[in-house]
Amino acid sequence: MVSDPVFHPWSAQAKVAQETVAGGAGAWFWNQAGERWLDLHSQLGNLNLGHQHPAVVAAIREQAGRLCTLAPSFRAEVRDEAARLILEVAPAGSRSVLFTTGGAEAVEHALRMARVATGRPKILAAHRSYHGATEGAMGVTGDPRRWPLPTTGAGTVRFSGPYRYRSDFHASTDAEERDRALDHLRRLVAYEGPASIAAVIVEPVVGSNGVLVPPDGYLAGVRALCDEHGILLIADEVMTGFGRCGAWFASDLWQVRPDLTTFAKGVNSGYVPVGGVVVGERVADHFAERPYPGGLTYSGHPLACASIVASIGVLRDEGLIERAARLGATVVRPLLDDLAARLPVVGEVRGTGLAWAIELVADRATREPLVPYDAPGRPHPRMVEILRACRARGVWPFVAANRVHLFPPLVIDEDDLRAGVAEVGAALTG
Amino acid sequence: MVSDPVFHPWSAQAKVAQETVAGGAGAWFWNQAGERWLDLHSQLGNLNLGHQHPAVVAAIREQAGRLCTLAPSFRAEVRDEAARLILEVAPAGSRSVLFTTGGAEAVEHALRMARVATGRPKILAAHRSYHGATEGAMGVTGDPRRWPLPTTGAGTVRFSGPYRYRSDFHASTDAEERDRALDHLRRLVAYEGPASIAAVIVEPVVGSNGVLVPPDGYLAGVRALCDEHGILLIADEVMTGFGRCGAWFASDLWQVRPDLTTFAKGVNSGYVPVGGVVVGERVADHFAERPYPGGLTYSGHPLACASIVASIGVLRDEGLIERAARLGATVVRPLLDDLAARLPVVGEVRGTGLAWAIELVADRATREPLVPYDAPGRPHPRMVEILRACRARGVWPFVAANRVHLFPPLVIDEDDLRAGVAEVGAALTG
Ligand SMILES: Cc1ncc(COP(=O)(O)O)c(C=O)c1O
Ligand SMILES: Cc1ncc(COP(=O)(O)O)c(C=O)c1O
Repeated sequence: MVSDPVFHPWSAQAKVAQETVAGGAGAWFWNQAGERWLDLHSQLGNLNLGHQHPAVVAAIREQAGRLCTLAPSFRAEVRDEAARLILEVAPAGSRSVLFTTGGAEAVEHALRMARVATGRPKILAAHRSYHGATEGAMGVTGDPRRWPLPTTGAGTVRFSGPYRYRSDFHASTDAEERDRALDHLRRLVAYEGPASIAAVIVEPVVGSNGVLVPPDGYLAGVRALCDEHGILLIADEVMTGFGRCGAWFASDLWQVRPDLTTFAKGVNSGYVPVGGVVVGERVADHFAERPYPGGLTYSGHPLACASIVASIGVLRDEGLIERAARLGATVVRPLLDDLAARLPVVGEVRGTGLAWAIELVADRATREPLVPYDAPGRPHPRMVEILRACRARGVWPFVAANRVHLFPPLVIDEDDLRAGVAEVGAALTG
Repeated sequence: MVSDPVFHPWSAQAKVAQETVAGGAGAWFWNQAGERWLDLHSQLGNLNLGHQHPAVVAAIREQAGRLCTLAPSFRAEVRDEAARLILEVAPAGSRSVLFTTGGAEAVEHALRMARVATGRPKILAAHRSYHGATEGAMGVTGDPRRWPLPTTGAGTVRFSGPYRYRSDFHASTDAEERDRALDHLRRLVAYEGPASIAAVIVEPVVGSNGVLVPPDGYLAGVRALCDEHGILLIADEVMTGFGRCGAWFASDLWQVRPDLTTFAKGVNSGYVPVGGVVVGERVADHFAERPYPGGLTYSGHPLACASIVASIGVLRDEGLIERAARLGATVVRPLLDDLAARLPVVGEVRGTGLAWAIELVADRATREPLVPYDAPGRPHPRMVEILRACRARGVWPFVAANRVHLFPPLVIDEDDLRAGVAEVGAALTG
């Protein structure tokens, strides 16, 4: 295979020189030559159940034999069942599920629901965030992936979330960071006009922008601020939902109930393209008698729904949510703490469940990032070097800006996980 | 099943009272009580191969057993093969394929490619068009589905396409309609500033807005106008691609080569959610060395690609493209012409291949529409009545505004097709 007929996202097409993958099982995948890698990033953070989980494969094959596709206006048992199971594990007060085909579309519809239901135009969204690449989702994205699209994002007002290691608020403790981040948001709401703000959208734990776990009390504080002004809270749990952070949803870590929760990835490990919006009471009530102005041909796709039903079953039956919490606390955290203690290039390690980031610095004292905060599509040569070193050692993490991300499948073998983190450490050592 | 846990698109949730579908085969589907309907709209226009085509089901099941999911940056045989087959049937000059998960996302990325590759902000888009419900796609949509979203569509300038039955140009012949529609577009380009226009987006045959088949020479005229000013031509073939109009692409009906062609639906009959953009030379060249600023987790999804490979094989092997052209010309057209001759409520019938519309009028002389051009989500009671009458007769067409649409699966049995059109006629009669 020389010339590539596929146009690859986020890339200069002449420069894509990627492995050709021939297969995968659990946390491993391999190329046609039989080289194997331990997937330490669950593909793009979606592969919670690992490759080819037999229960999910069987469910897809069975549904494929029964009915592959169905227009969204119909009801179908598998569709109802998938929605019901999601509502069982979703934050209390959730009422129904709009299915989409992925994360960006989920965000698109959550934003639209919020704007139409409140009749307000503005959305507050975080710097250091990613919400997807369609026009609406990119419009609330905060990271450099939006830089090439300067006119995108009308109606979006950006705020800074808590990030103590690089505080935008000159804070030095978690409590200070929390209080100042909330104060900042409160002032912004006042400046922009509370009655003009439809929603605040957050990643409850920020994913691809660095696994930023907020201090206790922050998310509840955002919820309270929203309630005060009739603003809706949208939790984008595309990356964090369905076990990644050691809970069904990251919002659960602080018992916060968003009005709208977006999901994709972990809901079915990406075995069939799907995403969606969990709709809370306030929005559900609005659209009970008024038509919702939006939709898509593949909403509630039967194959996707069958894979969701099976995936939620596996997450439950195999206790994978609790396992993620335990492996994070007892395996990953101590190993990474040890790395941080040994390697001067490591500025901070942080995470929860099986979502972790290693933040690399040029200088530990000044915290100068190893590579600059920069545009996407051109990873810094220093980070490419690190990635290559990892791959040569048989592990496949993700790099973003000056960070190495570890989001292994929740089913990863415990010994593999230990060995994999050790290989990343070795690659960072040089 | 009483309460509905699924949030249905385009609907007031308390008013969704839809059939629960239990299964389907070919052009038929049925509910749990065993009532059957002939699907005269291919679900949402996607089911070109009918329900449960064995070759496509087998391909999905096989790929599910091999590898369900894979991040977009990797290469994979099934991904390359799907793209290669699409390029084989796509307009000459096509170079690569960006896969998305559906039609709206395909349009999103086509618009972004056009804007970034040209460095120009504006898009010309038609009234009486539908391009999807995400922010960017809705921003170029022309029909009333955008009315509830008045601030959507910055950078879009709308034009009128040819539609002789209700000419925006006071034309009375096809040639006049064509010339005046082109003149209108040429003037608009001049008024807006040619160098500010990235692309013109068209449905080469307008789909859900009424099966508007342009007069010969119109599309070539748009192409020539674009070429004159360095403007890109985007053909949205989500509804029309892969045989619907009796050709692989509707653009082929006039041998026009768009710069970007969006597809979804017919590419795999919707068996797995997928869509994409066929990228022509000019855009491919631009992104050879420069990164494309966009992407999505499920681009090039293996299950979707496997279903595409199988579907294109079936379309070829069973000669379904030619069959659609033949059935349209020899079965549907004469039957509908006869209806038009007999029923005063029929103002015009029109179509090509297996895409047809029956336009209903209150008065044949004045052409007053049977129901007004109006907001979505609330089909007019008179049209709901017609839909009910059809369903009671065992046929399931689509209604939009004052029209009944017939988009049967390309595999529909010829006798079923005759009988189905007759039932629609009977429903309109009584
Ligand atoms: C938090 C978050 N939201 C939305 C998205 C977009 O999802 P998709 O790539 O399926 O469109 C992502 C993807 O990484 C994400 O991490
Ligand atoms: C011409 C056209 N473009 C785009 C779309 C949007 O596709 P999807 O519903 O898959 O987002 C449609 C859907 O009907 C369409 O007909």
